[in-house]
Amino acid sequence: MLAGVGLMPHGNPVLEPPDEDTRRLADVLKKIGRTFAGVDSYVLISPHNARMSEHLGVILAENLVSWLGFEGKVIPGEWKTDRELAEKIYREEKDAGMPVVDLNFASLSGEYSRWPLSWGELIPLQFLERKPLVLMTPARNLSREMLVKFGETLGDIIEVSGKKVALIISADHGHAHDEKGPYGYRKESETYDRLIMELINENRLEELLKIPEELVRNALVDSYWQMLIMLGAMRNAEFELKDSAYACPTYFGMAGALWVRKV
Amino acid sequence: MLAGVGLMPHGNPVLEPPDEDTRRLADVLKKIGRTFAGVDSYVLISPHNARMSEHLGVILAENLVSWLGFEGKVIPGEWKTDRELAEKIYREEKDAGMPVVDLNFASLSGEYSRWPLSWGELIPLQFLERKPLVLMTPARNLSREMLVKFGETLGDIIEVSGKKVALIISADHGHAHDEKGPYGYRKESETYDRLIMELINENRLEELLKIPEELVRNALVDSYWQMLIMLGAMRNAEFELKDSAYACPTYFGMAGALWVRKV
Repeated sequence: MLAGVGLMPHGNPVLEPPDEDTRRLADVLKKIGRTFAGVDSYVLISPHNARMSEHLGVILAENLVSWLGFEGKVIPGEWKTDRELAEKIYREEKDAGMPVVDLNFASLSGEYSRWPLSWGELIPLQFLERKPLVLMTPARNLSREMLVKFGETLGDIIEVSGKKVALIISADHGHAHDEKGPYGYRKESETYDRLIMELINENRLEELLKIPEELVRNALVDSYWQMLIMLGAMRNAEFELKDSAYACPTYFGMAGALWVRKV
Repeated sequence: MLAGVGLMPHGNPVLEPPDEDTRRLADVLKKIGRTFAGVDSYVLISPHNARMSEHLGVILAENLVSWLGFEGKVIPGEWKTDRELAEKIYREEKDAGMPVVDLNFASLSGEYSRWPLSWGELIPLQFLERKPLVLMTPARNLSREMLVKFGETLGDIIEVSGKKVALIISADHGHAHDEKGPYGYRKESETYDRLIMELINENRLEELLKIPEELVRNALVDSYWQMLIMLGAMRNAEFELKDSAYACPTYFGMAGALWVRKV
C-alpha cells in the first residue's frame, strides 16, 4: 500500500540551512521523516545514481553503501535493499513491457552484493528513519507517457505488495538561478520552479504533462522525469498535500512536499 | 584495430603467487601487460562489476574508481574511460539491435561522473599499463548467439575505430575445486576448466559454443558469457596464441591466455 509520497531535495544546504527559507524546507523534510516513521520500506527514485539514457533501473544489490558526496560533503552510512520488493518491481515492470533493468554489483547476493550511493540518495536519507529501501533510477530519453505508465505500474505493484511503502522522489529543480553559479542565470529556471510549486500547492500535478519540453530543458532541472513517475504512482489512490516548501539559497531550486494517502 | 586479446583471472592469488603454477600464470599476465604496452585503449569485460540479467552494459562514466576488493584486499587507483570509444560502442551495439545500456553515475560528465571498480577489474588492471579503457559487462540470461553477435559487432566497431585496442576478458572458471571451499567439490569444475584450456591451447575456441549448458551451470564459472563475446570479437581477424597458463591454488580455477593479431 502506498502510504504517501515525499518530494525531497538533495542539495547540501538543507543539512545546515543558511537562511529562513531553507530552515523551513528542512522542517518539511523532517516532517516527511516523522510521517513515514511507520512504513515498512521506501521506494527511492534518484537522478544522481546510475544514469542510463533509455532504461529505468531497479537496484537489486543487497547493500547500499555511501560513496560519493557533493563538494566534499561526506555522509557515511549503509542501507539494506528490500530485495523482495525490488525483485517484484523489476519483474512486473518488465512483464508490463517497460524498458527496465535490474542492477546488481560484483556478486548477486551476500556481503559483496553492494551498490554505491551519492548525495542524490544520501541527503534525503538523512531525514528518514533507517529502513529497507528499493532504489530506482529514472531516464531522460523516454517518452513522458512511458514514465507515467512506469509510475502507474509501480503504484499497482506497491498496492498489492502487502507492505506499507513511502515513495521518495529525490529532485532538485532549476539550476540556473545565479549568474555567478556554474550554469549562470536563466529566466527559465525561475519559471519552471514557480510552476512546479504552483502545481504542487494547487493540486494540479496532472499538468506536469503540459510543461513544454523546451522549458524543462532550458531550466536545467533534475526533477522532471522522476516527477512523472511519481505522477503515475499517485494516480492509484487519493493523496492529500500535508506540507510543502521551496528554497533557493545558492544556484539551484529545492522543493519539499509531503503527500499522505487519504483514508 | 583489435591488436590482441588477453584472458585474465581476477583472483587475489595472482598478486602474490603461492605456488609454481600461479607464478607461471602471473608471468603470462605480465607478458600480456608488456605485449599491450603500445595500444591506445583497452576494452575490459568484467563479470564482477554491474550485473544485469538480460542487458549488456557499457560504462560511460568518465572516472573509474577503485571501490571493492575481495577478502579485504585493497587495490587503490583511478582510471579514465575512453569516452569516445565507449559512446561509439554503446551507440552501434544499440543500432545493431543488441540489448545494451549505457551506464553513468551521479553526473553525465566531469569529476562527479564516476563508476566503481571491484576486484574483477582491479586485478587484471594491476598487470596492464595505465591507459584509457572501456569497461563493459556481460549478462548470463542472454542466448549464446546474442553474446557472440555482440562480440562480432564489438570487433567491427574496434576495427574501424582508428585506435589500437586490446580486448581484456576478466574471467575465473570453475569455483568448486575444493571440498573445503565455499562451493564444495564438483567434478564439473575440473571438467570445464580442462576443456577451456584445451580449446585455448588447441585453437578450438569455436567449440565454446558446444559446451553443454548443464556443464557451464554445474561448474559454477564466471567466465563463459564474456568468453562468448570474446569469441565473436575474434572472428574479425586471425589471432595467434602466444602464451597460456592455468592455476588453481585455492577453490577456483584461473586461466591466462594471450592472443596477438597475425599481421
